[in-house]
Amino acid sequence: MPKDRLVLFVMDGVGDLGITPLECAKKPNLDKLAKDGILGMFSPLGRGVVPGSGTSHLQLFGYPFEYYPGRGVLEALGAGVELKKGDVAFRINFATIKNNMIVDRRAGRISTDEAKLLEKILNMKIGNCQFIFKSTVEHRGALVLRGKNISSHIADTDPHSPGKVVEPQALDKRASSTAALLSTYLKKVNMALESHVINKKRKKEGLHQANFILLRGASSPRSVPNIKERFGINGCCVAGGALYKGVARYVGMNVLNVMGATGDKYTNLINKGKAVLRSLEDHHFVFLHTKATDSFSHDGDFEGKKKFIERIDRELVPYLIKSGANIIITGDHSTPVSFGRHTGHEVPILIYGNERIDDTTSFCEREAMKGGLGHIEGKDLMGMVLNLIGKGKIVGS
Amino acid sequence: MPKDRLVLFVMDGVGDLGITPLECAKKPNLDKLAKDGILGMFSPLGRGVVPGSGTSHLQLFGYPFEYYPGRGVLEALGAGVELKKGDVAFRINFATIKNNMIVDRRAGRISTDEAKLLEKILNMKIGNCQFIFKSTVEHRGALVLRGKNISSHIADTDPHSPGKVVEPQALDKRASSTAALLSTYLKKVNMALESHVINKKRKKEGLHQANFILLRGASSPRSVPNIKERFGINGCCVAGGALYKGVARYVGMNVLNVMGATGDKYTNLINKGKAVLRSLEDHHFVFLHTKATDSFSHDGDFEGKKKFIERIDRELVPYLIKSGANIIITGDHSTPVSFGRHTGHEVPILIYGNERIDDTTSFCEREAMKGGLGHIEGKDLMGMVLNLIGKGKIVGS
Repeated sequence: MPKDRLVLFVMDGVGDLGITPLECAKKPNLDKLAKDGILGMFSPLGRGVVPGSGTSHLQLFGYPFEYYPGRGVLEALGAGVELKKGDVAFRINFATIKNNMIVDRRAGRISTDEAKLLEKILNMKIGNCQFIFKSTVEHRGALVLRGKNISSHIADTDPHSPGKVVEPQALDKRASSTAALLSTYLKKVNMALESHVINKKRKKEGLHQANFILLRGASSPRSVPNIKERFGINGCCVAGGALYKGVARYVGMNVLNVMGATGDKYTNLINKGKAVLRSLEDHHFVFLHTKATDSFSHDGDFEGKKKFIERIDRELVPYLIKSGANIIITGDHSTPVSFGRHTGHEVPILIYGNERIDDTTSFCEREAMKGGLGHIEGKDLMGMVLNLIGKGKIVGS
Repeated sequence: MPKDRLVLFVMDGVGDLGITPLECAKKPNLDKLAKDGILGMFSPLGRGVVPGSGTSHLQLFGYPFEYYPGRGVLEALGAGVELKKGDVAFRINFATIKNNMIVDRRAGRISTDEAKLLEKILNMKIGNCQFIFKSTVEHRGALVLRGKNISSHIADTDPHSPGKVVEPQALDKRASSTAALLSTYLKKVNMALESHVINKKRKKEGLHQANFILLRGASSPRSVPNIKERFGINGCCVAGGALYKGVARYVGMNVLNVMGATGDKYTNLINKGKAVLRSLEDHHFVFLHTKATDSFSHDGDFEGKKKFIERIDRELVPYLIKSGANIIITGDHSTPVSFGRHTGHEVPILIYGNERIDDTTSFCEREAMKGGLGHIEGKDLMGMVLNLIGKGKIVGS
């Protein structure tokens, strides 16, 4: 009987160049899937296009760019905020400033646990506007403004590199009062954070303080047809990072909170594997995400990326094999260690299950280039998913 | 550090069928690039579509068909005419007529030097209309009409095969005075050319006289966003042929006049190689073009095409390798020797630099079909260029 379940496993930023981490990693389980399955090369947003993480995941779920609501909305949804119509959401970074200069955009990559302790003091009300703040993973978080006459037409204050502190700026007249509110908020935030015990401790330890927040991706929620309406399947998300949970929630998947799924290199892969097995009982489509391959790439850490792939192979992949479901394994984009950022190079993709079997024997870029799937674009992936689980609708007659 | 420069080298009409010139040519340098790079097959305007040279090059630079201004404009720009709003430009052929019949559409492929001597007498004023004439390479040239109330709605007078002389015809009422002007001009042209010393000499030598001109591609200039505005890069063109220089100029590249770059089989490839090296100093994107592979194909000359590829390998490719830039080598279309004209067959493409490396070892059609790039379309090329030089913008976040 054909398998009617599927796991889409996205290793964030897994694609690389040269002799790659995937190629060097010892990964007998992934290689077995390659041997018993089929490989190809994958461009989430089209050949050569450099995908953002949000836009790419949306496309993986069958939602092209026109459905992209902005980063703030996705991050806030992922952080668990129940967004209401008219809310304005931002993705934030905890950052370190000194003499009005940003000296570290990630506040020394502050730990998730420490950042969580800062959350409470950043929730406040100014005038009629409520500021809802959630920290998520490490230096990342979401900020939501709720009130009357607020606007999302606000420029990013994150310059993406160290430099002068940027004041919130309105992109049109209607947003000027929102920009002013944000200025007031950021001053209060800076003051509150400076005197927080966590930061005093960090200072003593010679660490960068999390004494400021940077804003980007201002956006307001919108309604989209959910994955059930659009494709006739129900979906479930097993991820640690807020953005990925946010995209899944945005398209109407069930989003699990898995114990120890931290969205970083310490994430508990065994718990994630178990969560996948449970989810498959009542979901056709399970989206599984690991983040650390991307983070190691951003840090230029080849060994870290390689070893994390080896841990995935050891601790997580056995659960996928055990599940008996169709399996797709790919990335949302390449993040070559040599570039240290997202690029538009293709990503290897593996399909195992109700698909053909080719001659490839190892899951890596070099082998995937010879794979029987050829070159696939993101716009075609959800159709292939539906086909694999026997839910592809006949076109015409 | 990733290379942030790129040379796009277009061998015009290089693609062929059967055992091909590329396959037979001795080309150790191109083969080394294939070995250290990656191959694929390329369709400039889509699978099976037969590209014109102008439309194909425009697409190579990231400008789809909607930006195509017409052949006349591109030829005139390439010939160095400063086009003004309202000008009407034609691509012309010197031709041979006898008793009102076209007997040779290329006037015995008159040499560039001889044609240049005919140029002066073809510049004239009739009524208020100025006729600006430029010969370019061999029988090719550009004619520009400048005056009030002239129209580009004029049918081609080039029947593309020997036959009766075609009178200039208006495609709508508003163009009828322009057609009449052109008729008068062509009569004067015929008379002036018949009595020119060059033609008397050619007649004595038993060669076809250049005693007429054929018009095609009537078009008026329009403004387009230049390559810097559109893609954030500056570009430079190293080519001999007027059309290719014209397309490059149309999209805002710097167009070099390289000594000895004639746009034919006698072109000085070493000077072109040196020009590429110089251009890379202050341009992200250098477009390099050689024409003779196409011309030999049109003439059904397999050996000539093969030997020209060998000369490219010997004299030009070493400069590309020396440059240290990313390299893309392809064609604008196939011109199989057996067809003697453009076809819609794919062209091999080679990428060397910030890309993956596949198992291919030789730059030819047979090997490129097995290449790791798979099948690429022209619409995706500029995105891939930007990605290779690290200038691809992230889509969304």
